[in-house]
This record gives sequence, C-alpha cells and structure tokens, in this order.
Amino acid sequence: MDQVNVGLCGLGTVGTGVVKLLQSHADEIKYKIGSEIRIKKILVHDIEKKRDVVIESDWLTNKPEDLVNNPDIDIIIEVMGGIEDTNLLLEQAIRNKKHIVTANKDLMAVYGQKLLRLAKENKCDILYDASVAGGIPIIRSLTEGLASDKIQKIMGIVNGTTNYILTKMTDHKLAYETVLKEAQALGFAESDPTSDVDGLDAARKMTLLANLAFKMEIGLDDVEVTGIRTISQEDITFATSLGYTIKLIGIAAIYEGKVEISVEPTLLPNDHPLAQVKNEYNAVYVYGEAVGETMFYGPGAGSMPTATAVVSDLMDVVKNIRLGITGNEYIIPQYEKQLKENNEKYMQYFIRMEVDDQAGTFQKITNIFTDEKVSFQKILQLPSNTEKLAEIVMITHKISKQQLINSRENLKGLDVVNEIISCYRVDGED
Amino acid sequence: MDQVNVGLCGLGTVGTGVVKLLQSHADEIKYKIGSEIRIKKILVHDIEKKRDVVIESDWLTNKPEDLVNNPDIDIIIEVMGGIEDTNLLLEQAIRNKKHIVTANKDLMAVYGQKLLRLAKENKCDILYDASVAGGIPIIRSLTEGLASDKIQKIMGIVNGTTNYILTKMTDHKLAYETVLKEAQALGFAESDPTSDVDGLDAARKMTLLANLAFKMEIGLDDVEVTGIRTISQEDITFATSLGYTIKLIGIAAIYEGKVEISVEPTLLPNDHPLAQVKNEYNAVYVYGEAVGETMFYGPGAGSMPTATAVVSDLMDVVKNIRLGITGNEYIIPQYEKQLKENNEKYMQYFIRMEVDDQAGTFQKITNIFTDEKVSFQKILQLPSNTEKLAEIVMITHKISKQQLINSRENLKGLDVVNEIISCYRVDGED
Repeated sequence: MDQVNVGLCGLGTVGTGVVKLLQSHADEIKYKIGSEIRIKKILVHDIEKKRDVVIESDWLTNKPEDLVNNPDIDIIIEVMGGIEDTNLLLEQAIRNKKHIVTANKDLMAVYGQKLLRLAKENKCDILYDASVAGGIPIIRSLTEGLASDKIQKIMGIVNGTTNYILTKMTDHKLAYETVLKEAQALGFAESDPTSDVDGLDAARKMTLLANLAFKMEIGLDDVEVTGIRTISQEDITFATSLGYTIKLIGIAAIYEGKVEISVEPTLLPNDHPLAQVKNEYNAVYVYGEAVGETMFYGPGAGSMPTATAVVSDLMDVVKNIRLGITGNEYIIPQYEKQLKENNEKYMQYFIRMEVDDQAGTFQKITNIFTDEKVSFQKILQLPSNTEKLAEIVMITHKISKQQLINSRENLKGLDVVNEIISCYRVDGED
Repeated sequence: MDQVNVGLCGLGTVGTGVVKLLQSHADEIKYKIGSEIRIKKILVHDIEKKRDVVIESDWLTNKPEDLVNNPDIDIIIEVMGGIEDTNLLLEQAIRNKKHIVTANKDLMAVYGQKLLRLAKENKCDILYDASVAGGIPIIRSLTEGLASDKIQKIMGIVNGTTNYILTKMTDHKLAYETVLKEAQALGFAESDPTSDVDGLDAARKMTLLANLAFKMEIGLDDVEVTGIRTISQEDITFATSLGYTIKLIGIAAIYEGKVEISVEPTLLPNDHPLAQVKNEYNAVYVYGEAVGETMFYGPGAGSMPTATAVVSDLMDVVKNIRLGITGNEYIIPQYEKQLKENNEKYMQYFIRMEVDDQAGTFQKITNIFTDEKVSFQKILQLPSNTEKLAEIVMITHKISKQQLINSRENLKGLDVVNEIISCYRVDGED
C-alpha cells in the first residue's frame, strides 16, 4: 500500500489547515508511515468560493456521494461539523469500508458508541483525538502512551470559553455578564453561549474520555453537570481569601468498577497545577495506577492545533490499515456500566449562606451538620451588607454527596438560615 | 508475525515492572499491536536471587551473548543502566539486527547519535521515550502527536531531584545544604548528587529533546549549564518578594535555523504553569508553530512510570517492524548544527549585588548599564546587613547575553560594587 487516498469533508479553517499540513509535510509523513497520503475529493457547500490554499481542479465537490461512495477513497476526514446529517454521511462511509477521522465532539458524544460499533463490524477505524481539546494529545496518550496502565481518574479543564470567563472574573474582578459580553465581542464565546457556560460542551468531552479510560458505555445523561452562570464575584472573593481558585472542572473516576462523572464549578488550592491554567487554555490531569499523576496542557481549540491533531490521527489510521489492526477491539466498551450512588461519592464542599446575625444561630447550624456527621476544615463568618444578617462560609472535610444533600435540605428548614447562596465542591488537597 | 520475542537486560525495579505489565496486559497488548510479545531471556547479575515477579525457569542468564547473539530474539529492552559496557552490548545487538528499547539517558546522551546511525544502517529501531522524564510521554508527543508541526521551543523542568530541593527551599525556607541532606536521607537525591545539582542530568535530557525537535546533532558540550548549588535563601526571598519562583529550567529554542540550548536557574512569574510544578515532578512545555503552547506534566522518574514508558515504546517497535518503517529516517539529524552567538540570545536577567551605601553609587552603576543599552523593569534597593553596604536587586528588560557579559565585566571594575552576589535569567513574561 504505497498510497492512501483521502476524502475531506469540510474546507473551513480546520480543513484548510489539514490540506496545508499534508502539503508541507508530505515527505516527512511518508517516511513516518511508509505510505503517501493523497487528497482525492473535498466536500464543500460552495465550489466557486475562493480558497486560501492550493487545491487541484478536480478535488472540490458538493455531493457527499462523491466521497462516501467513491471506491478510490480509503479514509474520510470529517471537519465540517453538524450532527444528524453528518452521522448519516459517516454511517454510509463506514458501510462502504471507509475509515474515519473526525474532529466532531458533538457528533461523537451523541452517536460515538453507535459509530464505533458499526466501524468494528466493518473493520474500520474511527479516530477522534481532534474532537477533545484540539491541541492536547490526550486521547492519544490514553490509548497509547498509557496503554499498559489502568486509568483511575481523569480531571481537567476541558472548555476554553468558560475558563476564559472565570480567569477574567478572577484576575480583573469583573462580573460574569460583563466578561461574557467581552468574550462574545472577541469571538471567544458564541452568541448563544449555552453549550459552553452550562457545562454541556465539557460534559461531552468528559464522556468521550471516560468511555476510553474506563471502557464502559457512559452517556451524556450519566454526567452530573453544573455550569458557571451562577458564580458571583463574591464567591470568587471568598474563594480567593481562603486560598482557592474557582474553575469549571470535569471529573471522571472509577473505584472498584464503579464510575462517577461530573462537570461542576470547583475550588482548587491556588498552588494546584489546574488552578494556574488561564484564559482559553485546557489541561487534563490523568491518574494511572502505574504511572501516577500526569497532566497535559495546551490550547483547547483553534484551527491549527485541531488540524495538527487530525493529521496525527490520519497517520495512525494509515498505520493501523497496514498493520491490520483497524476496528480496534479496545476502543469499544468492554465492561457493564456501573455508576456510583450519592453515598459513594466523597468530596469536600464550599458552602456559603446568609444567616440571622443573632446569638444561637451558629449553634443551630452546626447541630444540623453534626447530625449528618459533617465536620469542617475552615469556617469564616462575616457581617453581611444587609443589616442583622451575617454571611457564613464553610469548607467541609470530605463527605458523601448524600450527606451534603441531607444537610442542605435540613438547613433550608431552619428559620435562622436566610439563604444558601452557593455551594461548590472543593478538590485537589489529597 | 504472530509473535515477537524480547530479551530484557536488567531485572531491577524497572525491569520487574516491565515483566509485570507484559504479563498483566498481555491480551490488551496483543489486540493493540496485532502480535504477542514473549520474553525469551533476562540478563541479570545473580541468577539465584529471589525475584518479586513470576519468571519462567529458562529465562534468567548472566551471559549477554544469550541475548544479543540469540537468533530467536527480535527486540532488546535495556533497563540495566551503565554507559561503556552497555554501549558495546547494544552495538553488538544492533549488528545482529535487533531493535532496541532503552530507558538509559546517560547512554543516549553520550552514544545516542552513534547508536541511532548504526541502527539506521541495520534497519533497526532505537526507542528511548523512557529515558527522558519517565512518566511523561514527551518523546512520543514530539515524534507523533506533533509530527506534522514545527517545534520552535522546548522549555521545562526535567530533573526531579533539583526541583524537589528548590521546592523545599522555597516553601519551607530551608538552606540548600539542609534540604540536600534531607533529600539524600529520603532517597530523592544520590549520595553523590553532582550529576543532578550541577545540571548535567537535565542537560542530557535537553540534548535528547533538542536533537529530536530540531533534527540537528546537538551534543552535551553545546549546552550552557549552571546548577543550583549557589542558590541561596536570600535569592529565593528576593525572587518571591518580586513575584517570582526560582526553578532549574532547561531551554532549547530555534530561530532562523540557529539553536540555543541551556540549563540554568531561572526566575518565573508565580502564575507561570512551570512555577507551580513541585517536588519531584517534571514538566515540559513545547511551543509548536501550528499547535501553539502545550505542556506535559508528570513524575520525572520512578520505576512504574518508567516501565509504562518502556512497554509503550516496545509496542511501537513491534508496530514499526510490521509496518516496515524501522530505522526511522526522521530521528536521524537532517540539518547542520548551528548555534546562536551570545549577541543573538535574548533574555531578561535578575542581578543582585552588594554596593557601597553612599551618594553617587547608584548613578555609577546605572551609567554602566546605560553604556550597554541595558534598561530595567524592576529595581529594589535595601540596606545590607553589613554596615555602610546596601543591596541592589535589578530585573532587566530583554537584553542579549553579550550585553549581560559586558555589563558584569564593567561592574566588576567599579569601586562602589563590592560583589555581584547572584545573576539568574528571568523568563515566562512574553
């Protein structure tokens, strides 16, 4: 197999980057994989549009069938986005025994398991390193570098938009709404920021990583998700004064075969490596039984980082074709899904509430926590802006999620508690 | 090729880890590479010694020729250490067409280029990811994940012992000698710590990374090395008060085909990701033209992380054998070595000196810097402990190394300058 033919779906910034990399690194790629990679067709909406890259006259088409039904094409690179139509296109391609490289995390989060199974039946590869944290070779590391290890925990910042917003809120003491508007003006956040700020984008990525690490079929519904909309400047000020930084953290962990997976605002000690990851950067920390703690840090997205990841995946597919190891058994779930119950999830929590500033309040509150066997690492009490009210900020020792839920429920029934203003988990002090 | 046979040199903690991983992950490895890996022979000093792993009766030998001249063995894993004898052993193995996986950075820094050339002549692979920062798949990332990118700069903490010492000196305000003794007692530093504390170990690793990234034959002699012996508690205090952390940082950078490579104590802003890398951990930051800034963080050494890296390399060699792409062209230097001159290396510097506490001193000093066109970002003047002396701490803007050398020379000739106490580079504020 001296030559491998590729069909590229999409010629936006990522697609253009892929074409440029394949052209400028042609010799090197050939040496590294033992085959030449040739572009056969590129699927675009508008054939007439001017392109920012040298393309041959017969490459462009607006008919998907020119790629997915083309007997000359071995591999489909999908960098056009979209979910439903794209899924149908890739299904057809796989049925025609074409291997897939995709940068589409939305698609993979929804149809990934189905596509992977279909690919296995057809002895095809689907590689999607570019879909999670574009510039970080995290999927590659999970499947290769740490191949002989047992992954116990993955924890990280996997959404650039929310990390940008939280960084600006923390460093410049600006309100959420102000920073969001600025981010939208600069193009760092979309006009409808829901998917990012509500944590869905991060949840999709954590799902992909967890499936790979734990070899279970974990769905988006299994992720406990809280976004960053409710984080106030006061929360950040309290966190800072206690030595913490608030980040939107995804966690996927396994213990005795049971998994917990979540995306939530989380307080990290300022000297925790993840606390220093700023702006649009991503970082994923992996805990393996043999290797211990490792972290990968880099740009979460961007067209050239993503194109680099696509080309690396493409090179791997070619290698796998030549090795006869496509349709890899080990990307497919092997274990029955088992999720932890709330009484099996342990974490520290930051709880901030507004209470009546009168004698006996504190005792009533501590009684409730004591009944639930919750103890504290730090407690701060401050007068509130409002008269006759005080604010209490507490950081618990490790407790179960169930203990937290029970305590919160009981606090709500207490007359001296005016409001539980915020409640975030705390991690990174083990 | 259903089965690949391996000869293992060394059965210490790393070797034992490799055997355990190969045994416990046998099925998974077979699926991932399409071949079974079998251990044929293990070279040890003492055949009778009790071993902490299940081994077959005919595996152990104390004769190197049972491995390197054994026609049944395809791959030699070298985890026994040593330079001269080990080099001869591996040379013989390569001449017998055996592929090599090694965790031996001392060997690779001295004989790496020679062995790689010999391996190429014999169409063999030498993989050595485990030799640099055991737990971090950095070499893998440079050769694969970032395969289609152009690396511009590598910067990192690549020695665990010195990072442990600097962390304790900073966090617990202890003197260098005190921490070194503690580290030796705990086994984090060797009884002769020269190779670590004088920066040689870090320099060897930077050489390996630079050769790979820039495809030039850069030797240990090309690295400018300063160790950490002279760093005092006062240096750390001054750095802290100015918002910096002192780390032993290796830098390898290329610009217009010219390389600079060095290992030196370096002041980093406290919020720089590398400033937060503590204790024995390593972290390497890579700047690629396409991907931008990425960082890899993990345990710098340790037997299980190293064993994991060895097994990953082993799996890659098997893949390469089956792909017919061993003896990879692209690990061999392709470009003529070109090093930057001192007037082409730009950096900020921290300069601390003891001066006469009298009128006119400051002007005399600034005149010298002005003559060399050196300007400053920060200046601190404090009374010294000694009477009639003052201490001045300055942080320059970016200047050339030649400007620094000239300024220091001229300062020494100045009667009001009692001593230039310390001078370190400052990085990470671009």
